[in-house]
Amino acid sequence: MSGRKAVILSSGGIDSTTAMAIARAENYEIYSLTFHYGQRHACELEAARKVADFFRVKKHLVIDIDLRPIGGSALTDQIDVPKGRGVDDMAHEIPVTYVPARNTIFLSYALAWAEVLQAADIFIGVNAVDYSGYPDCRPEFIAAYGQLANLATKAAVEGKLRMNIQTPLIRMKKAEIIKKGIELGVDYGLTHSCYDPSPAGKACGRCDSCTLRRKGFEDAGVPDPTVYIAP
Amino acid sequence: MSGRKAVILSSGGIDSTTAMAIARAENYEIYSLTFHYGQRHACELEAARKVADFFRVKKHLVIDIDLRPIGGSALTDQIDVPKGRGVDDMAHEIPVTYVPARNTIFLSYALAWAEVLQAADIFIGVNAVDYSGYPDCRPEFIAAYGQLANLATKAAVEGKLRMNIQTPLIRMKKAEIIKKGIELGVDYGLTHSCYDPSPAGKACGRCDSCTLRRKGFEDAGVPDPTVYIAP
Repeated sequence: MSGRKAVILSSGGIDSTTAMAIARAENYEIYSLTFHYGQRHACELEAARKVADFFRVKKHLVIDIDLRPIGGSALTDQIDVPKGRGVDDMAHEIPVTYVPARNTIFLSYALAWAEVLQAADIFIGVNAVDYSGYPDCRPEFIAAYGQLANLATKAAVEGKLRMNIQTPLIRMKKAEIIKKGIELGVDYGLTHSCYDPSPAGKACGRCDSCTLRRKGFEDAGVPDPTVYIAP
Repeated sequence: MSGRKAVILSSGGIDSTTAMAIARAENYEIYSLTFHYGQRHACELEAARKVADFFRVKKHLVIDIDLRPIGGSALTDQIDVPKGRGVDDMAHEIPVTYVPARNTIFLSYALAWAEVLQAADIFIGVNAVDYSGYPDCRPEFIAAYGQLANLATKAAVEGKLRMNIQTPLIRMKKAEIIKKGIELGVDYGLTHSCYDPSPAGKACGRCDSCTLRRKGFEDAGVPDPTVYIAP
């Protein structure tokens, strides 16, 4: 253990879990950060906890933030989650599952915690290849956040901490992410992706997130441990 | 009323209230945003509500965020608020009242709300002259945030909204801010500044925030409506 600390944004999904596996392989001491933001798919939280246990993180923090008063998303409002879109559709239209400024908000909390911990590294499992077209997953967004992070905090201004926003998956296809994770020993059976699971936590199999997940396992040639409602 | 919408970060203090008066004078439709972030001085919230009523804002949103699990500040932890510092001390040391990444977090929520409202303008009453030396009050921080804001949202990426982070007070001395507010009809009796008020809401008179407030009114030659505990 090198003792370098990293804050890792963890949703309990494939991408953030793989980002955590990469940070673990690089010998970071891991502080995982998960948000309960009024999302309909709160079983994300349970998955994030299991993943934190799996990687024996130093600390797992769940922060309650309520984005519902702000609204504007199918993930927090009573708007139907789109089903049955193909991967090509996703590339051309930002869907109603987009949560306004979500990664901006998440990274801001990560930055606050990183400053308190004196952790120079923040990992976020964003991906700009097989993704839903969200603006706050793109490399130019992440670069701008890095600029901001180094102007925003006392630690940075005093020259004590040079912040890095690490995005190890940003140029990877979903199948490559899964292969990388398998290589690092990730148990994807612990993870959860579906935007619209059943009350018992079963994946719908047809939302963007399920579609990307299924195709990822298929393309990787790795058995998908997920139980889907739709065949 | 021009119908242009602005989100205004409102703490119920002098600066954000004056920023709101300026937005009002510029005919913005005002959406005020206040945070309950576990701060010890929760009478800020009451002041922010009164200010919102005073300016007849279109909507006043109070968002509950709990920064206490993250810690690292005298404003949210059980750390003593420094008392009796002069204005010169403030220029040379960032105090323990600094809340890690606070304005970064606040602006992120403002950005989310602005996107939902389709408001292009966010007002924040930061000030880099008579201030406590906080890094996230400086012009370079605000400029970086503006860059980020235009990469972070669906509305910006689709070219529908060009975001502006407006900081009308950033180069003003506290006395100038107060004179400007008086000129615009602000009732500063509604506002609250103290970091460490009595349970009944009386200002301590000796924290950085009270010191800047008292000196501001004195320098402006305007009677200070505040009741302070310390003479």
